[in-house]
Amino acid sequence: MTVRYDVVALGNAIVDVIAQADDAFLTREGLVKGSMGLIDEARATSLYGAMAQGLETSGGSAGNTVAGVASLGGTAAYIGKVADDQLGAVFAHDMKAIGVHYTIAPLVNGAATARSLINVTPDGERTMATFLGASIAMDASDVDPALIRAAKIVYLEGYLFDPDGGRAAFAQAAEVARDAGVQVAMTLSDAFVVDRHRTGLLAFMEDAVDVVFANESEVMALFPGASFDEACAALGAKVKIAAVTRGPAGSVVISGAERVVVAADPVEKVVDTTGAGDQYAAGFLFGLAHGKPLDVCARLGHMAAGEVIGHYGPRPLVSLKALAQFKGL
Amino acid sequence: MTVRYDVVALGNAIVDVIAQADDAFLTREGLVKGSMGLIDEARATSLYGAMAQGLETSGGSAGNTVAGVASLGGTAAYIGKVADDQLGAVFAHDMKAIGVHYTIAPLVNGAATARSLINVTPDGERTMATFLGASIAMDASDVDPALIRAAKIVYLEGYLFDPDGGRAAFAQAAEVARDAGVQVAMTLSDAFVVDRHRTGLLAFMEDAVDVVFANESEVMALFPGASFDEACAALGAKVKIAAVTRGPAGSVVISGAERVVVAADPVEKVVDTTGAGDQYAAGFLFGLAHGKPLDVCARLGHMAAGEVIGHYGPRPLVSLKALAQFKGL
Repeated sequence: MTVRYDVVALGNAIVDVIAQADDAFLTREGLVKGSMGLIDEARATSLYGAMAQGLETSGGSAGNTVAGVASLGGTAAYIGKVADDQLGAVFAHDMKAIGVHYTIAPLVNGAATARSLINVTPDGERTMATFLGASIAMDASDVDPALIRAAKIVYLEGYLFDPDGGRAAFAQAAEVARDAGVQVAMTLSDAFVVDRHRTGLLAFMEDAVDVVFANESEVMALFPGASFDEACAALGAKVKIAAVTRGPAGSVVISGAERVVVAADPVEKVVDTTGAGDQYAAGFLFGLAHGKPLDVCARLGHMAAGEVIGHYGPRPLVSLKALAQFKGL
Repeated sequence: MTVRYDVVALGNAIVDVIAQADDAFLTREGLVKGSMGLIDEARATSLYGAMAQGLETSGGSAGNTVAGVASLGGTAAYIGKVADDQLGAVFAHDMKAIGVHYTIAPLVNGAATARSLINVTPDGERTMATFLGASIAMDASDVDPALIRAAKIVYLEGYLFDPDGGRAAFAQAAEVARDAGVQVAMTLSDAFVVDRHRTGLLAFMEDAVDVVFANESEVMALFPGASFDEACAALGAKVKIAAVTRGPAGSVVISGAERVVVAADPVEKVVDTTGAGDQYAAGFLFGLAHGKPLDVCARLGHMAAGEVIGHYGPRPLVSLKALAQFKGL
């Protein structure tokens, strides 16, 4: 099998609904700032009803990451499920428009396309409440082994640990990748996901994962009671490469005895942090797929994250390839 | 009847699909830069297929204007038709979320919600191709006379001159307004609209309109062969107030013998001019409804337009009321 894709990613296919909110709104709606919570359709309707005027845009964590990889000039494919509805058509269009291979059949006569209701506070922090809708309908049968084998890196979204079908797809992709010698990367996605699936995630990482992405709260949730440095070291001991982001404080990359600390890119004004972690992963994975050293991988990650937090929406609005050339990366 | 609304607006209820494009794309797709063209569903599908990844957001010229009025702290109602689909639900949600009265029943078992495919070039200029879909289903029966009578100003979108139902709704609203002594404002909307309906528009203005908004190309299209100053004077002779915008060069307001010239607000970077004219009208109408002198009305208009061209999307992202207070308007 010829390698055709830098990254093949699996994730929940989601359309983002982004609106402005203040902290009082989050409190009133019982939302934990900065978190991602799962909601059912009734709650999605009532929360949406209370939200401000919004912007709709294709999202989904791994979907955002492949968008970043494509913007960097890389090749990517995506596996995730939408419904046969208007928002699903928007999601599929956007994948095609950015040049990402995406052929998963939409769900017919089932739940609507997944929506993440994202409230952005004036500090740029995003709080997400996600109705998984049709994305839950993805299962192992949607994972084409040939597609996995055609990848340099398979990238898995930790959010998939929540729905049964997603977890099955996750396991199937990892197994095919391992047998084919394809690198497996994953993101822990969210501290609450880690909390819900700690044991399963740890076992899965040890068994099948080469590269793991986490932010500070996720790595701390994975090793309760440990200090940040201890948690990073513990994570680094489980995988070949652990990349831990710390928001404006940059990131720490651990690979065996190597420990690389990279500063975040300065950002004039943080408008909306949605997609920051996804874009860090995009830059890092692109670098890794192209044989860059770890510090360059991390710098590409911070560059991509820095672009996306300067505007509303979780995907790059400028060519990251041109930006990387400009920055000499 | 108690006056309950500063502005009651009629327009085509449209969801915007905003994407980045270069000039070569416009040429390839046969689009005239800066214009609004009407397209059918097949063309909408093919053009969308060729477009870049997009942002979806509620739009529609008069819809954007009432959003601006509401953001300024004014009261507004909207009359326009969406379909019973996801994008229609987004449009209706956004109206409710910004506090605009909107109760028009969605179209069931008909065309989809109208979409405007907006390609934004690096100079910030927007080029629109609009599939009118369900918005065409609006007609005079959607115009509640009680709602019109409850307005200080009825605002009509020139785009409604294209569909038959819209034109009928337009005429009905103007007639009720005239009988009730409610001021009638309208925008010419687009030079091609003016070209298609020149005679009808001139007759309608002379008969029923108090306040008219136009940009430079629209006023020139209305009076072919006239210079800009001659065209402005001719327009001013037809209505009580004519407000003509000139992009970065500001605006000229003519009212009887009075002629007010106001500069545009300086904008750091023009990102997307979509909605600039709509927001100018919002600021101006809000000022007019609150008894401000013409120069303040125009300055409120430029302030609102300046906010909206600094980001993607045709509606304000900050409170225009707070902005106006900050600017002492």
